[in-house]
Amino acid sequence: MLPDGVVTLADHEDRVNTVLSPQTLAYFNGGAADEITLRDNMRAWQRIPLRPRVLRSVAGGHTRVSLLGRSLAHPILVAPMAYQRLAHPHAEQATALAAAVLGAGMVLSTQATTLLEDVAQLVLTEPSRGPLWFQLYMLPDRAFVRKLIQRVETAGYEALVLTVDAPVQGARERERRTGYRRPPELAAVNLAGRVAPRPRELQAGQSRLFDDLMTHAPSWEDVTWLRSITHLPVILKGITHPLDAQQAVACGAVGVIVSNHGGRTLDTMPATAHLLPAVLQAVGSEVPVLVDGGIRRGTDVLKAMALGASAVLVGRPVLHGLANAGATGVAHVLRLLRDELEIAMALCGCRSLDEAATLGIVDSTWPTRAHTL
Amino acid sequence: MLPDGVVTLADHEDRVNTVLSPQTLAYFNGGAADEITLRDNMRAWQRIPLRPRVLRSVAGGHTRVSLLGRSLAHPILVAPMAYQRLAHPHAEQATALAAAVLGAGMVLSTQATTLLEDVAQLVLTEPSRGPLWFQLYMLPDRAFVRKLIQRVETAGYEALVLTVDAPVQGARERERRTGYRRPPELAAVNLAGRVAPRPRELQAGQSRLFDDLMTHAPSWEDVTWLRSITHLPVILKGITHPLDAQQAVACGAVGVIVSNHGGRTLDTMPATAHLLPAVLQAVGSEVPVLVDGGIRRGTDVLKAMALGASAVLVGRPVLHGLANAGATGVAHVLRLLRDELEIAMALCGCRSLDEAATLGIVDSTWPTRAHTL
Amino acid sequence: MLPDGVVTLADHEDRVNTVLSPQTLAYFNGGAADEITLRDNMRAWQRIPLRPRVLRSVAGGHTRVSLLGRSLAHPILVAPMAYQRLAHPHAEQATALAAAVLGAGMVLSTQATTLLEDVAQLVLTEPSRGPLWFQLYMLPDRAFVRKLIQRVETAGYEALVLTVDAPVQGARERERRTGYRRPPELAAVNLAGRVAPRPRELQAGQSRLFDDLMTHAPSWEDVTWLRSITHLPVILKGITHPLDAQQAVACGAVGVIVSNHGGRTLDTMPATAHLLPAVLQAVGSEVPVLVDGGIRRGTDVLKAMALGASAVLVGRPVLHGLANAGATGVAHVLRLLRDELEIAMALCGCRSLDEAATLGIVDSTWPTRAHTL
Amino acid sequence: MLPDGVVTLADHEDRVNTVLSPQTLAYFNGGAADEITLRDNMRAWQRIPLRPRVLRSVAGGHTRVSLLGRSLAHPILVAPMAYQRLAHPHAEQATALAAAVLGAGMVLSTQATTLLEDVAQLVLTEPSRGPLWFQLYMLPDRAFVRKLIQRVETAGYEALVLTVDAPVQGARERERRTGYRRPPELAAVNLAGRVAPRPRELQAGQSRLFDDLMTHAPSWEDVTWLRSITHLPVILKGITHPLDAQQAVACGAVGVIVSNHGGRTLDTMPATAHLLPAVLQAVGSEVPVLVDGGIRRGTDVLKAMALGASAVLVGRPVLHGLANAGATGVAHVLRLLRDELEIAMALCGCRSLDEAATLGIVDSTWPTRAHTL
Repeated sequence: MLPDGVVTLADHEDRVNTVLSPQTLAYFNGGAADEITLRDNMRAWQRIPLRPRVLRSVAGGHTRVSLLGRSLAHPILVAPMAYQRLAHPHAEQATALAAAVLGAGMVLSTQATTLLEDVAQLVLTEPSRGPLWFQLYMLPDRAFVRKLIQRVETAGYEALVLTVDAPVQGARERERRTGYRRPPELAAVNLAGRVAPRPRELQAGQSRLFDDLMTHAPSWEDVTWLRSITHLPVILKGITHPLDAQQAVACGAVGVIVSNHGGRTLDTMPATAHLLPAVLQAVGSEVPVLVDGGIRRGTDVLKAMALGASAVLVGRPVLHGLANAGATGVAHVLRLLRDELEIAMALCGCRSLDEAATLGIVDSTWPTRAHTL
Repeated sequence: MLPDGVVTLADHEDRVNTVLSPQTLAYFNGGAADEITLRDNMRAWQRIPLRPRVLRSVAGGHTRVSLLGRSLAHPILVAPMAYQRLAHPHAEQATALAAAVLGAGMVLSTQATTLLEDVAQLVLTEPSRGPLWFQLYMLPDRAFVRKLIQRVETAGYEALVLTVDAPVQGARERERRTGYRRPPELAAVNLAGRVAPRPRELQAGQSRLFDDLMTHAPSWEDVTWLRSITHLPVILKGITHPLDAQQAVACGAVGVIVSNHGGRTLDTMPATAHLLPAVLQAVGSEVPVLVDGGIRRGTDVLKAMALGASAVLVGRPVLHGLANAGATGVAHVLRLLRDELEIAMALCGCRSLDEAATLGIVDSTWPTRAHTL
Repeated sequence: MLPDGVVTLADHEDRVNTVLSPQTLAYFNGGAADEITLRDNMRAWQRIPLRPRVLRSVAGGHTRVSLLGRSLAHPILVAPMAYQRLAHPHAEQATALAAAVLGAGMVLSTQATTLLEDVAQLVLTEPSRGPLWFQLYMLPDRAFVRKLIQRVETAGYEALVLTVDAPVQGARERERRTGYRRPPELAAVNLAGRVAPRPRELQAGQSRLFDDLMTHAPSWEDVTWLRSITHLPVILKGITHPLDAQQAVACGAVGVIVSNHGGRTLDTMPATAHLLPAVLQAVGSEVPVLVDGGIRRGTDVLKAMALGASAVLVGRPVLHGLANAGATGVAHVLRLLRDELEIAMALCGCRSLDEAATLGIVDSTWPTRAHTL
Repeated sequence: MLPDGVVTLADHEDRVNTVLSPQTLAYFNGGAADEITLRDNMRAWQRIPLRPRVLRSVAGGHTRVSLLGRSLAHPILVAPMAYQRLAHPHAEQATALAAAVLGAGMVLSTQATTLLEDVAQLVLTEPSRGPLWFQLYMLPDRAFVRKLIQRVETAGYEALVLTVDAPVQGARERERRTGYRRPPELAAVNLAGRVAPRPRELQAGQSRLFDDLMTHAPSWEDVTWLRSITHLPVILKGITHPLDAQQAVACGAVGVIVSNHGGRTLDTMPATAHLLPAVLQAVGSEVPVLVDGGIRRGTDVLKAMALGASAVLVGRPVLHGLANAGATGVAHVLRLLRDELEIAMALCGCRSLDEAATLGIVDSTWPTRAHTL
């Protein structure tokens, strides 16, 4: 059970320090290198000022949004996160159940520790559920990918979220310093049977990274291939450059997620709150643009939506809730965020999130002015 | 009695920590969420640079201002604050008396712990007094509001200050963490007899906030209604968006108060010092624009006036004075602020506050330049 | 004697903490109110970037400058500081002697604790001496001022420095908190015999400040009067607004000193490094513009000169040297500063300080760009 | 041997604190004066945001660059650093060997504690080696310089790197405070036999700095002279002003190194990351522009290259590796940096460093906007 003092996502984060080992915390909470991007993600949302409108009637207001042809109770989705069994024995099942009950979308990680079919069954039977998406890493074994996607389709997932920003893993030194090792009994169960590529023999002057590992990295051609083997809509996660956003749309992606992988891959990337406007400007009128990274408050969600995002994804806080109290903890985190979002909307005079983007309550150029103080 | 070391408003704030319980301090001093706006309010005034003029004769100078047809000894008013009995048994009577003697305006809170008639009697018999205003929350029970306003009129209040920025309460987590509960013996005595709305039964998918609580929130129509039932001038408190300021004037408000509720409702709102210029630009030539939030120094008052404000309201510091030494403490706080204002004026070469706005002693565009260092 | 570890002005400041009482330190080192300007003064010089030129021959270079018709060995003057006997029994004599030997100008304070004639005698007999100026507060007793100036002229002072930025004293709360009181045996000996004005009886609503104290404050008319009763050139100290600088020149001032009184009068004034450029732009081609406040390094001196200042004044560091080791300490401080200035010039490729202003080694617009990081 | 926890250059820096004496650390790690530039160097690279491109095929990518007609395995060179024997008994031999094996260029300091011929022999026999350059201080004894350069040519060095930003030594107060003295047994062995200039007798008013020391400082004429006595290409190190960069090219320099001497000479110079763009704009199309100062991460290297630099030099981290584990430590440091560079390139979608400058992954104007937060 959650003690009384846990009333914000930050409280969940504090509390999880007493629940998980330093090694697991390093894996879940750590970022790449000096963790500059990790910290900036949170700070950036905080520093975007909200300029509320008052005395507007918001009775009958709501947090509903429309996304890829579906109506959602609110725009909060659970970001794909690997190995949730590290946080709690109920793992992805607890996360998925809580998300479904709270109406939050669920994005299952390729590296889930629960069979994708089991998660789908839990979610799809919950009437209040949000979207159910499957996050995909483009594995070297493309035959396996094909089979995996067939399972995903059969299980009832509604979209594929292809991660494009992690062709190699970032240097997560917090993990290395604490000596984090994935426990051997913890398996990415949906990947059973895949063939790992044999390390190539390198010639003199060749690079393990460029001449072996990166030969398996996903490319724009793979996006096209992926679309050819599935009827599921494909969303690209990790798009941050406006030129890439345009190419994503040209390649048939039905949406993009502005993400820096939670600050876990390439340190010193800008905060996602600062990356979002340029991507919106490039493709925001053509496809939905989602965003994740550093969202810890309902005001953060409102700011993202007011800037023009179509939905937001929340990662680590969900893991903290999961570690703290299983499905109850996840539900608590999502509930806090949704409640805070409602209050922020009411205080800003927004009857709906569509309206939020039209009322002038955020001004993305402001931060450079008054709030640099 | 106040010890020797208390020579600034900050000293009062320090000292109050030894006087009040952590719970009461959380209620009085806390802000919404991460208290970013709470801190920014103070910092913003500090960072606006003063550029003094020298060798100007200011003999015979004064702090007098004209506000809504009255001449005031100085532009400092006591902001409306609820439940002052928590700070000191003499409560609003001590505050009102000290304010009157020091020539400061008094804005009594709807949630005062003293009968509004008793406060009025004390103030109105003091010859040096400033304006006496009544702060109003638009309660769901409109019949009660009508009766309350009749009492306010009869008692001699000179204006109504309608709070428009708190349709719901902000999440004040400092209160929740310390376990603050209003003591049961503490009553908002002027609200006795009002009928609280019964909670609505919600249908599936409805929101307690949007479909129940917010149906009672004040709207622009309520402003019009309020004006129709009283001959008192109406001032709107909590206006920060230029568009709202224009609508306030269009609705017949005789003044607006730029306020973010002391950082207590919507966190990450900009500091009021940064919100003021745009509101002044929108309506400053039509109605007086007052400001509150973070004013702790005479230089802060001077800056607000030099930017174009017509008066300022001071909240928490008055409570600190009250808690520290009752009416004496409040008087001390107001005196310090007024004395500091005089010194700041003298050092800036301002013979009057009207003049302050014309001498070029503040430059609201400066902060982004040299003072970002 | 100075221990080995004292190799910078900051070391002198550290060391003085072990030499003087907290009360005296509060008097010497404290600033007005929250000491924001006090801190900004130092930080501002540090943040102005130096962009050196290389491979320029600077053999035979020098720090000489020309000021008011005299050639000085270097542009560093000792700022006027009151009551130096608090720091060391040798007081202003030690300061003046060390300054003279080091070729630094000396500005004696009206509130010196040494007879102005004694200081003049010491300085004028030293061949390497810099300028000898007398700082003047415009006292209410103008007959006394007239006699004082006659003494100053007779003693051989070469200019009057009229302080214009302190018509009243700032609130120096560090002094009040430590309980600083000037020791009764410490007298401003040059002011003996002056008639202090009797406090006026105030009428109701009148202000001690505006209706009594400020009636004695200096005005532009006093500058004109002052010029009429002396043949000494008059420099105005405490000019920061460009409009005031222009008026100073129009009134016949032969120079202005950009100063915020070391952050001791009006808190939240900008740093002098940030005030200097506008004053230079307004009158820099007509009269010399000097600057003080926060100069602690030879690089600070070079930056001031490269921006266009004609000389700099140094205050507190001289007091620290005086307290630490009497005349030896003052000489050490001045020597460090001059040596650092030479090194900074050599490293920037400046053969002279005149040249410094033409080589593009400072860019006053830069701070807002790269150095806000 | 290096313990497990040393996985970044920062770890090397931490660890070296347990290996070297405070005095030696002060010498190696200290900067001039208040060490503002020292700190800014590092921070500036960190704050330049990387904006990666995704889904680009980088298989077969590489870190190769072309520099002065040679192809290098990667753009990382070891900066010239004096007295490496202080760090480890294997001194410059260990550094040079490790650099050669890792394909890093080696710039030997004039003040090396190893014979330049011995270093050359080690490097030139290693097939994977990078360029071998000799750093030159223009000594007062020009006949000695001529002989020294003959030795350098004979030994097989490929370029001369003339240091132009240290005509005198900066005030390194950390050294003075810790009482650092070079151990008497430590000699700049390549300088044996040079004649130190006799101190001049100064006349009254003359300056030891300007009238003696600086008469030996290098000048533009010396660059011309240097080119006349050697067939080796000459690179100028310490060029930061665009005008100086243009003059360097006009004088026949084949390259310039943007450097502030690691923050060791003139404090408050801008970070090299901020100085680089203007130099590139001035001469980047004519000669290679290299940069050093504060590079601690592969992302820093990538940013320098993406801005347009032709190579980077790394100083202190190499010393830390040397002190921690001799040649193994240096190799580890260089390996970490190169591996991080590869990962950063892969994550940014850069197949080569030439490409890095064309993909829009850094935007030197961004820092002033979003990242001032």
